[in-house]
Amino acid sequence: MFEFTLDATCGPARAGTLVLPHGTVETPAFMPVGTQGTVRTLSPADLHAVGAELVLANTYHLHVRPGEGVVARLGGLHRFMSWDRPLLTDSGGFQVFSLEGFRRVDDDGVEFQSHVDGGRRHLTPERATEIQWTLGADIAMAFDHVVPGGADEATARDAMERTLRWLGRCAKRHAELKERWTDGKMERSFPRSNVPSVPQTLWPILQGGTHLALREEGLRRICDLDSWTGLAIGGLSVGEPKPLMYEMLASLEPRLPPAGPRYLMGVGFPEDLVAATERGIDLFDCVAPTRNGRNGSAFTPDGPVNIRNAEHREDARPLDATCDCETCTTFSRGYLRHLFVAEELLGLRLLSLHNVRFLIRLAAAMRAAIRAGTFPRWAAEWRHRYTRSD
Amino acid sequence: MFEFTLDATCGPARAGTLVLPHGTVETPAFMPVGTQGTVRTLSPADLHAVGAELVLANTYHLHVRPGEGVVARLGGLHRFMSWDRPLLTDSGGFQVFSLEGFRRVDDDGVEFQSHVDGGRRHLTPERATEIQWTLGADIAMAFDHVVPGGADEATARDAMERTLRWLGRCAKRHAELKERWTDGKMERSFPRSNVPSVPQTLWPILQGGTHLALREEGLRRICDLDSWTGLAIGGLSVGEPKPLMYEMLASLEPRLPPAGPRYLMGVGFPEDLVAATERGIDLFDCVAPTRNGRNGSAFTPDGPVNIRNAEHREDARPLDATCDCETCTTFSRGYLRHLFVAEELLGLRLLSLHNVRFLIRLAAAMRAAIRAGTFPRWAAEWRHRYTRSD
Repeated sequence: MFEFTLDATCGPARAGTLVLPHGTVETPAFMPVGTQGTVRTLSPADLHAVGAELVLANTYHLHVRPGEGVVARLGGLHRFMSWDRPLLTDSGGFQVFSLEGFRRVDDDGVEFQSHVDGGRRHLTPERATEIQWTLGADIAMAFDHVVPGGADEATARDAMERTLRWLGRCAKRHAELKERWTDGKMERSFPRSNVPSVPQTLWPILQGGTHLALREEGLRRICDLDSWTGLAIGGLSVGEPKPLMYEMLASLEPRLPPAGPRYLMGVGFPEDLVAATERGIDLFDCVAPTRNGRNGSAFTPDGPVNIRNAEHREDARPLDATCDCETCTTFSRGYLRHLFVAEELLGLRLLSLHNVRFLIRLAAAMRAAIRAGTFPRWAAEWRHRYTRSD
Repeated sequence: MFEFTLDATCGPARAGTLVLPHGTVETPAFMPVGTQGTVRTLSPADLHAVGAELVLANTYHLHVRPGEGVVARLGGLHRFMSWDRPLLTDSGGFQVFSLEGFRRVDDDGVEFQSHVDGGRRHLTPERATEIQWTLGADIAMAFDHVVPGGADEATARDAMERTLRWLGRCAKRHAELKERWTDGKMERSFPRSNVPSVPQTLWPILQGGTHLALREEGLRRICDLDSWTGLAIGGLSVGEPKPLMYEMLASLEPRLPPAGPRYLMGVGFPEDLVAATERGIDLFDCVAPTRNGRNGSAFTPDGPVNIRNAEHREDARPLDATCDCETCTTFSRGYLRHLFVAEELLGLRLLSLHNVRFLIRLAAAMRAAIRAGTFPRWAAEWRHRYTRSD
């Protein structure tokens, strides 16, 4: 369980297979984001239809509402969401540091204000680990300290050092929970009602801002700590220039352990998926497809389309003629535009559905090109078409 | 085409089959309302899944936005909405008289203010008929003058007389359009690109407020004018007490022509469907299932449930254990409550889907009881369970 097999490589780009308790994920893979235990506007049947193999949910949001106890008593996160395939929970670190409102960080953890009721809450590495254990996703993430994209080296080092110390505490608590669970001595307060025969795995998150030396040091120290089943790169795509992110990934790539999948958190847009896959990344998540979809912006092979534009008024063509999703095989651009102009909720769902399908098909196309050994040419052609302005 | 067969009766209650150009409708039947060419939050696949056989769209709304010309150039209303089963368009009379803003009625028609851009528009019986012909639904409705539930007899008579004069003009224009279409001489401005071999039919609307003598006179004069393929009762469920509506239906029932389906417009709630079917009604439409669904209110055999209530917080049971819809076979009440409390759009769709399925299953259950000759007992038991407060 949690085995990752490299099926093919093409330069730094990799095609792999990750086996998880709830199913198998073929990489490169895009994970739709179900922040509050639902991928906005999409049902589990929709997610199956678009070929999602792994879905992300947020520990912070589910802890604040409805509470991990409620989720557990309703059968755990899989049963709660009615999602039978693999799940990953973010640790809450990113949310605690990016949402508005009061927060106080010390070495113990973070005190912050709930965005729902304004009440004070406290998260520590141990609590974040326990909450994720209770939710019962296939993959849990370590609790991390995220700094803004432009943070100076001292700030970034401070957060990286803290994230490393916290990683040790997450791993310790996770090992204890796993041991008690394996021994059948699991406390009643940490049920894992929905998981088959193997407990969840924990992945570390590499921080270090945009300071390459820090990132390299952090990576070394993470790998020294344990042999992980996967590794995430956090704190990128948080406001820094895109070329800087690409440079960082290219420099880190030769130093990344080849054994597990590499997950670039919070990325991204179609062009970012291609650029990061070229730099050895295997897993992605981002709210862009659903958020942009709700704003009327659709991904197509010829670049983004704003469906509200007047030019689509009487356009009988599908949104994306190459796409096999329900939206593109059923409706005209003219009808989709009407739904947005008339503020009909169906439009939000149809564009979200297409955008998620677009990224999942993009990942599948990259995988095919990597296996065929033609990825560099494929990527050049894809980029040419996507960025060409007609 | 447009043939209505009575399959069984049980007292005044009827089970029938209506054949329309785009398919067959078994009655009693509930029509979901797709005001702007979409049943709010539901896709055509959802409507198929819940067993909808006939969908209503609004002439007023589609005329104002996107305009019937746009709909026609995108292939007509069926293709526009991607709905391949029967459609009915309301004439716009109800909307013109019930929406806010300026309006001026004279015998020619109604001048009113568009709710979209505030611009002055003009609808006449001829225009309403032409617009509906252009949209291309299976059934078009005559343009009518609706008065509020409490209107006095003079006001109600005035509107009824006008509605009758307008009916003659609608029928004349409809016959002209149909003749030209049959002769292959249809003007380019009235395409019917999406219809098979038979043009649409036109149904009259009976008005008369809550004044029974007026209603009886109106009914006589409508039946004298032509032999219609169906007949609608309008101007009920517009603010008058429910017992008054039931009384009106019971008194009218023996005088209704037995040949075509009887459509009670804008009704309704589950208890209204049962009460009106007991009084000889065959067809219904109402926004209640989708509007209430979006507000968190769900129909169940034990009466309405407000899913936001705290009692559902950890309730693992389905919304309606007797229901076969996606919502009830997939999700717990606890999860549905979470979606509403967290303001997730998926919740709006899931409750709308269930509520529409509930009314369609209710109509099917009534049909079965009518065919079995057990409808009075069935209705008494249904009502007992639905209204019993536990």
